[in-house]
Amino acid sequence: VDSVALGAAAERNAQLTKPPQALGQLEGLAIWYAGWRGTAQPTITAPQVVIFAGNHGVAARGVSAFPPEVTVQMVANFNAGGAAVNQLARTFGAKLDVVALELERPTDDFTQTAAMTEADLCAALSAGWDAVDPDADLLVTGEMGIGNTTSAAAIAAALFGGGAEAWTGRGTGVDDAALRAKTEIVNEGLARHPQANGDGLEALRCFGGREVAAMAGAILRARHLRIPVILDGFICCAAASALEKAQPGALDHTVAGHLSAETAHRRLLDELGKIPLLSLDMRLGEGSGGTLAIGVLKGAVNCLSGMATFAEAGVSGS
Amino acid sequence: VDSVALGAAAERNAQLTKPPQALGQLEGLAIWYAGWRGTAQPTITAPQVVIFAGNHGVAARGVSAFPPEVTVQMVANFNAGGAAVNQLARTFGAKLDVVALELERPTDDFTQTAAMTEADLCAALSAGWDAVDPDADLLVTGEMGIGNTTSAAAIAAALFGGGAEAWTGRGTGVDDAALRAKTEIVNEGLARHPQANGDGLEALRCFGGREVAAMAGAILRARHLRIPVILDGFICCAAASALEKAQPGALDHTVAGHLSAETAHRRLLDELGKIPLLSLDMRLGEGSGGTLAIGVLKGAVNCLSGMATFAEAGVSGS
Repeated sequence: VDSVALGAAAERNAQLTKPPQALGQLEGLAIWYAGWRGTAQPTITAPQVVIFAGNHGVAARGVSAFPPEVTVQMVANFNAGGAAVNQLARTFGAKLDVVALELERPTDDFTQTAAMTEADLCAALSAGWDAVDPDADLLVTGEMGIGNTTSAAAIAAALFGGGAEAWTGRGTGVDDAALRAKTEIVNEGLARHPQANGDGLEALRCFGGREVAAMAGAILRARHLRIPVILDGFICCAAASALEKAQPGALDHTVAGHLSAETAHRRLLDELGKIPLLSLDMRLGEGSGGTLAIGVLKGAVNCLSGMATFAEAGVSGS
Repeated sequence: VDSVALGAAAERNAQLTKPPQALGQLEGLAIWYAGWRGTAQPTITAPQVVIFAGNHGVAARGVSAFPPEVTVQMVANFNAGGAAVNQLARTFGAKLDVVALELERPTDDFTQTAAMTEADLCAALSAGWDAVDPDADLLVTGEMGIGNTTSAAAIAAALFGGGAEAWTGRGTGVDDAALRAKTEIVNEGLARHPQANGDGLEALRCFGGREVAAMAGAILRARHLRIPVILDGFICCAAASALEKAQPGALDHTVAGHLSAETAHRRLLDELGKIPLLSLDMRLGEGSGGTLAIGVLKGAVNCLSGMATFAEAGVSGS
């Protein structure tokens, strides 16, 4: 982060025509963005949303309310402009890219073996790395993959402990019996891959999926490009957690876009020390919550950069 | 509200390519908007933000951290495009209108007499009524008036009971001693005007200000025009409360844009039965929180109207 720009933005913020702190969380948010972009008066003109899609071997175990073929069907829906995230990206002027990751070749069932080989993991991380537009000034990473809340629960449990019960939720909406079975499957996976405990990359490799690893690669690339990132829900945050475990501070260029209705998301945000911008009971994935939060960030940044100072406006201070 | 459109929107929502309820609060929000606009696939293309400004006799008692001349200075700032709400209105494509209400003639100090005469109240309500653009498809009402959290606290206390202590907060940021004095002033006003208890219009008249009454007039006009309204913070909600007291259900065409940091706002929203869309510790007034929430509402409406159905997209249901 550019500490000169950060300081200049904070100084500018203090002079704007409003009582101190009257814009609440918007103020720190805009200053954070300014620091990463290296200017005290930034603008957001080129936000990018990237949706990664992958299929999960564990989906064959019936962990989702939807059949696995929905992944490829939803990719077609993204490309045709019919999904929620398409409408939200359009609403906030974001470019939407869709990256389908070998959908015909699901990851392996993590209760039997690692979801991915090391080569698979590298390919997925690279796909994420390559998907980031260097000219973007904001990134949201989203995902589509039937079965991927199961994958994310296993990753979170491996990285933060607490067992499957603490991290397994209803995803797209499984019933009580299916939730118990899903939890047991996560526990089976944790028992199968003890070497993943506390190890970000190994957790991604063992539990997958490709789209989860790709989100991690994209978030890391954004850090190198100084592109701020808005995190989406539980699965995105599980991917991000792998980076944070590998290198504490790796998520300083990110904010939490929203608190989702997936029950373990709050716990995951607490582990990451992130306060969500929105809390609207969304639980769709596909980057939808993060994309909705682009509006909040744009508003914050436009206030910092566009407002008059007390001196410019001839307004009396307190 | 158009119950046919409401039902059609709910039916459409149930067919969209997402798990049931996966867009959380956005779903009910979009259906609500559709009902008021009378179409199952609405769009928001002409949002209007109106800022009303007024001066308060009670400001001479030192209830604010800012001097009274800031009201007229901020009106100039709004007109020059330098305030926070200007940046937010621009961010979300809203037209911004500013209505200054006899700033050279403050209301009377409500601890001594009623803030307004009946003629004053009628003029202020009419100014609000007339300010609404009949072609708008969404309205946010905001305010500027040094001293007006004092006015709003008195109105809320008169309408909902609990005494000044329950409703008086720091406004733009007064210290502990000033907060105690402000609370005492509100109690003086409540003792002076017992006939305002539970009476919406009389509370507006006794405690003012012109800008508060004008917001009530605008919200009422919007109801007649079937223009949905996003409520802003504590002062806007105090104005709205006068309508709700006069006619229960009068705020059915409104949603709460945000929960502000003014402490009594949560209590007021609870009284009105409103759940805020945002909670970002904002406490600026001038319609800023409501205007930021336009982004959330636009996102919600665009999902309802723009998403493909399962059948259209060829996606398998659960």
